[in-house]
Amino acid sequence: MNIPANNPDLKSWVEVPQNSDFPIQNIPFGVFKTAQMNTRVGSRIGDYVVDLKSLFVLGYLENLPFEAHDFDATSLNSMMKKGKKAVRDLRNRISKLLDTSHSDLQNNEHHVGQVLIPADQVTMLLPVEIGDYTDFYSSREHATNVGTMFRDPNNALLPNWLWLPVGYHGRSSSIIVSGEPIYRPKGQTRNDPEKDPTFGPTQRLDFELEMAFITFDGKPLGESISTEEAEDYIFGMCLFNDWSARDIQSWEYVPLGPFLAKNFASSLSPWIVTLDALEPFKVDNPEQAPKVLDYLKTTGQKSYDIHLEMGIQPENSENNVVCRSNFKYMYWTMVQQLAHHTVNGCNIRCGDLMGSGTISGPTEDSYGSMLELAWKGTKPLKMSDGTERKFINDHDTVIMKGYSEKNGIRIGFGEIVTKVLPTK
Amino acid sequence: MNIPANNPDLKSWVEVPQNSDFPIQNIPFGVFKTAQMNTRVGSRIGDYVVDLKSLFVLGYLENLPFEAHDFDATSLNSMMKKGKKAVRDLRNRISKLLDTSHSDLQNNEHHVGQVLIPADQVTMLLPVEIGDYTDFYSSREHATNVGTMFRDPNNALLPNWLWLPVGYHGRSSSIIVSGEPIYRPKGQTRNDPEKDPTFGPTQRLDFELEMAFITFDGKPLGESISTEEAEDYIFGMCLFNDWSARDIQSWEYVPLGPFLAKNFASSLSPWIVTLDALEPFKVDNPEQAPKVLDYLKTTGQKSYDIHLEMGIQPENSENNVVCRSNFKYMYWTMVQQLAHHTVNGCNIRCGDLMGSGTISGPTEDSYGSMLELAWKGTKPLKMSDGTERKFINDHDTVIMKGYSEKNGIRIGFGEIVTKVLPTK
Repeated sequence: MNIPANNPDLKSWVEVPQNSDFPIQNIPFGVFKTAQMNTRVGSRIGDYVVDLKSLFVLGYLENLPFEAHDFDATSLNSMMKKGKKAVRDLRNRISKLLDTSHSDLQNNEHHVGQVLIPADQVTMLLPVEIGDYTDFYSSREHATNVGTMFRDPNNALLPNWLWLPVGYHGRSSSIIVSGEPIYRPKGQTRNDPEKDPTFGPTQRLDFELEMAFITFDGKPLGESISTEEAEDYIFGMCLFNDWSARDIQSWEYVPLGPFLAKNFASSLSPWIVTLDALEPFKVDNPEQAPKVLDYLKTTGQKSYDIHLEMGIQPENSENNVVCRSNFKYMYWTMVQQLAHHTVNGCNIRCGDLMGSGTISGPTEDSYGSMLELAWKGTKPLKMSDGTERKFINDHDTVIMKGYSEKNGIRIGFGEIVTKVLPTK
Repeated sequence: MNIPANNPDLKSWVEVPQNSDFPIQNIPFGVFKTAQMNTRVGSRIGDYVVDLKSLFVLGYLENLPFEAHDFDATSLNSMMKKGKKAVRDLRNRISKLLDTSHSDLQNNEHHVGQVLIPADQVTMLLPVEIGDYTDFYSSREHATNVGTMFRDPNNALLPNWLWLPVGYHGRSSSIIVSGEPIYRPKGQTRNDPEKDPTFGPTQRLDFELEMAFITFDGKPLGESISTEEAEDYIFGMCLFNDWSARDIQSWEYVPLGPFLAKNFASSLSPWIVTLDALEPFKVDNPEQAPKVLDYLKTTGQKSYDIHLEMGIQPENSENNVVCRSNFKYMYWTMVQQLAHHTVNGCNIRCGDLMGSGTISGPTEDSYGSMLELAWKGTKPLKMSDGTERKFINDHDTVIMKGYSEKNGIRIGFGEIVTKVLPTK
């Protein structure tokens, strides 16, 4: 695999602030618009969005298999349809154009003015037209915490959990991008099993700190993607907050799983960071015992070291980071999730989204949901403004961030910022 | 509501065979292609497909809010985007053009030749680009049977079942149309809880006799559709066979619900019958006790009398009807399902598909799955060729049919024909 865009010695002629999530080694993809401009596909360098439509029109993307409509699209899907190699070549081309040692774009001031747009002048949009959304449940600590709280601390993990990456289908229509608010969902709950259920706004609104990956087109129905092949079908990753209403969930979820407790909204970060950009941050896989069945076996490192945090910002106050976790805590890897998902012949399509499930770490401050952090409301979290949180309040803003860092190179995912509004 | 297309006295100048599913009172919508023609939107009368693109080009659809590309599309979505009133007006126009008392099309032999295509010369395609697929679990008899088999006969229904229409999200990518074969899925199962799980083709492949409804565009995220409004957001209905692998299901489904046991394939009938066409077949709703919460209350008849059957045709043999059921056995109505689905602010989109769940009736021959019909394999079903079935074998063809009938008018759904092929 040849990924010149990841060379640690690369420097860009575009100024990149220290600790930026978007150095020349990142080159993520997203969709944006401006006051003057309809939706376009872009990349990002430092504090600038790179307008790929302009790059295309100005001739900088010649000899790549793309057309103009791939870049003035409302989603990345058309670009992604061209496949992994084409997207890799595109990313390498963008990197080259932004590299100090290449002068083509750098020396054309007029073109630079068209191609680079200050990030604070754009509105980022949902990057992908999502076909199917699947959510896994792949953090052992999270599954153990939930099992301990709601079932039996001595048998917290259900019998299937260590044998297969448990997953279920979620709702695509209600996936939104960072910046869009959510409305507190209403629903049926039954907190007292001796009384009739009641209806009203959820009293237990929660976040779930997750990451998600986006797929390329897969194989025809009836065929499977092996763990060896899986990376070829993964475009990239982003941050993901899978909003949950715990009181609705506990009443509705047997026997078919969560439904209205989850499908009112899930929030996505706007930049998709390619798997290529994350290659330097691979780490050893978690040990898996019992040994997995053959179709789930992998060779080589398939885990990633990605720092993650979630914060709560009460209205008119500051952000309180309540959780610091890491993607490497995942028990099941993405290639195992994808192999499992397709082993029955289920097909995947360009733009499908697969969530990791809540990523909880081993320590109490690394749990990925309020349910776990405040332990079912028994340990409220203190905010810097003196208030406490068992769950999320109306007018709170919830902020998720994530990045990888190694040898002075930081590849970041930006953030998800979501304000919670009262029931509509 | 003015639905002239349903007038029982209407007769078409196109010959309609007795017992046809498609008299002039039906006028369903679907997508087809022929050897000479790319995909087009069509309707159906007797043994002919009505080519709506030709009707449009020849000027017969004037003063309706449609454009040519709505009818040479690969799905009904573009047409449906125009909304309930537009589609109702279109259906009434088609009915009028095919009515004996109107001469415009009838008397133009050349045009008739372009517009009517013998049904045996077309290939029917998946009619809808499905955004999200939701499956409910709304037959009391089915839920009771499953609860009796797998849990406790004395507490077969879980506590939430009578309070809300239990549902969950399924997979859109693997929904196929009648005529397409399925491949027996592989997966992980654990039939002996004392031994490690194993991997291989499912040994318990099952059908589920269901119906599904297709939605128009809904409201913005955060808003709800009431039971009173729900019919305005439903385009029509079709037959639905939600394939299931029972051994995979029982191992994987706790705690997040069925996943690989279902998402390898679901089969749809090609013609969508509008809710308008089904209006004459409304019947009283089932009695619901306990009384439902306010947001689930309805006024008037919301159930439909639709005869349903499922058959198994072993290779080189004949169809054995193994189940005769009826849509009216559903405990929860479609308007309740849709109101519940959106009560938390979840948005629906044009082309979403909502399955009823397996529709089992009160008698043993009206159960909607092999799991129930052969009662967990304890009562194998005899085929006319002398073989027996506990579940579905490779090379079996499974055939679902459905129709409503009243006062000599039969509104049918056609059929779903699906052959089961060995694991790929």
